[in-house]
Amino acid sequence: MVGVMGPGEGATPDENIMAFDLGKAIAKEGWVTLTGGRSFGVMDAVMKGARDADGLTIGILPTETEKGASENAQIRIVTGMNSGRNYLCVLSSHVVVVLGMAAGTASEVALAIKANKKVILLNQDEVTIRFFKNIGSYKVLVATTVEETIKHIKEYLAVQQRY
Amino acid sequence: MVGVMGPGEGATPDENIMAFDLGKAIAKEGWVTLTGGRSFGVMDAVMKGARDADGLTIGILPTETEKGASENAQIRIVTGMNSGRNYLCVLSSHVVVVLGMAAGTASEVALAIKANKKVILLNQDEVTIRFFKNIGSYKVLVATTVEETIKHIKEYLAVQQRY
Amino acid sequence: MVGVMGPGEGATPDENIMAFDLGKAIAKEGWVTLTGGRSFGVMDAVMKGARDADGLTIGILPTETEKGASENAQIRIVTGMNSGRNYLCVLSSHVVVVLGMAAGTASEVALAIKANKKVILLNQDEVTIRFFKNIGSYKVLVATTVEETIKHIKEYLAVQQRY
Amino acid sequence: MVGVMGPGEGATPDENIMAFDLGKAIAKEGWVTLTGGRSFGVMDAVMKGARDADGLTIGILPTETEKGASENAQIRIVTGMNSGRNYLCVLSSHVVVVLGMAAGTASEVALAIKANKKVILLNQDEVTIRFFKNIGSYKVLVATTVEETIKHIKEYLAVQQRY
Repeated sequence: MVGVMGPGEGATPDENIMAFDLGKAIAKEGWVTLTGGRSFGVMDAVMKGARDADGLTIGILPTETEKGASENAQIRIVTGMNSGRNYLCVLSSHVVVVLGMAAGTASEVALAIKANKKVILLNQDEVTIRFFKNIGSYKVLVATTVEETIKHIKEYLAVQQRY
Repeated sequence: MVGVMGPGEGATPDENIMAFDLGKAIAKEGWVTLTGGRSFGVMDAVMKGARDADGLTIGILPTETEKGASENAQIRIVTGMNSGRNYLCVLSSHVVVVLGMAAGTASEVALAIKANKKVILLNQDEVTIRFFKNIGSYKVLVATTVEETIKHIKEYLAVQQRY
Repeated sequence: MVGVMGPGEGATPDENIMAFDLGKAIAKEGWVTLTGGRSFGVMDAVMKGARDADGLTIGILPTETEKGASENAQIRIVTGMNSGRNYLCVLSSHVVVVLGMAAGTASEVALAIKANKKVILLNQDEVTIRFFKNIGSYKVLVATTVEETIKHIKEYLAVQQRY
Repeated sequence: MVGVMGPGEGATPDENIMAFDLGKAIAKEGWVTLTGGRSFGVMDAVMKGARDADGLTIGILPTETEKGASENAQIRIVTGMNSGRNYLCVLSSHVVVVLGMAAGTASEVALAIKANKKVILLNQDEVTIRFFKNIGSYKVLVATTVEETIKHIKEYLAVQQRY
């Protein structure tokens, strides 16, 4: 279960393209893609990519109903908790990949570090990397490409041996 | 997505047997089985039945980690919310089936009615049926067998037309 | 901290009058009144009564902002969790009093029993009493007047000795 | 309602001293102090300061019971949600002050920005300030002393006019 966290409406076109490629790569490895489930930005694009490669996708929705869910989210967990659901996205992921940055995304990175999850910062700027390295030290890895991200995850899973 | 709610440790052998049969019947219809995800009682038995018929199972766990999850829960949503997760079980289900009764289960029936979900009381006693009919009226259906339960769900889905 | 649970919009005039008297009686004992915080029904009336006797009131709101909060809720905990906040109302109360009945209220009684709280059913019908006695046994007390309710709470606190 | 967020066990002696002074200053203004409620670090110290100046203190606890609560938390909201409670701390605060930094604290700053709260970063390093300014822009203020923090809050409240 790979959680991919990133902005919704505020995502850039480049982030959405990379998210699509990331979703495809995750699905090709046979992993499940988990996101915040809404029909915008990185969440939507990564699940679209995963579906394109026949992967399973899970969306953990902030809303009280399925309204607003991405059609690319096959399994929809409805929380009614608004941004409180960010904590659940993180706890349910075995590894967290972060692509793009916004307030909600930042809360997910911080909660992931707090919950002792491995976090991969994909294509982030220097300030973001330094900030999260300061609070998360060895739990935080850095990648600039999808390939590097998949490699990090594989190495982590190899160490865990329990997947 | 059919949510099946019922006691954990306190479930009777008869409830567990019926839960196993219910899980098989749900899976044979091609529906997903959703439960509270723990390795005890109705939750565990219904997912075991669903797996036996190659169905997909989802467990929404009360814990902060996967520890204590049923091995029959294929997809595990980790909430760290204790009984607060009961609300999520209910919101994420399209129909809620209730088998056996305990305090946690009763909270799920009540929250399901509150969230306007269709609830099927399977094999419940007269007091339980009257209580939930009083607060839920037409949203609450009654069944005494697995077959009757599946029939209720099919009729409901036919009306909804959106599944 | 005495939690008073009951219907919002659906409360009857008689329930609201009794809730007002209950709030006054709780405040006169020097106890804090905790409710779901909205500006309707039992929640609102009990806090109005408590304020009338200069008691402190706490409202645990389902919403993401304070909009919709009762003006009688002095301290407002904003959860953004919708009915998920029912669990918090119950956990934060030392004793739970239930006046009137609806789906949300029923979920609070059940969650209170699950969390091993003492629950006092005030002025409930026979079916309701029998249902909750079945799942909560000794944790569930019955009262028909405000005075009897206060007496139950005092006896419980005397046993607890830690308040 | 001023929320003060900061590390628990990991807080430095200097942070705890400043937190104590901050709590006193908040109480002297007649404001309520809200924290995560545990008996460690910044949470505990700021409530101790507030109590020292006869202020009201609220602790929103991560646990399922009051065990582990600071004795300086007068009103205790018990959530059973672990770090999921961070979202509630933020939503329930009118202004959020951040003193010290750790993963849980960072999630609170991010969630506060997401919820459009005014955030005051007290005594933070350059990387932290730049990171949160990047994602929160005008919502994020910077202070180096307790006096400056109180001044920021007063100016904000004056603009809001609704407190």
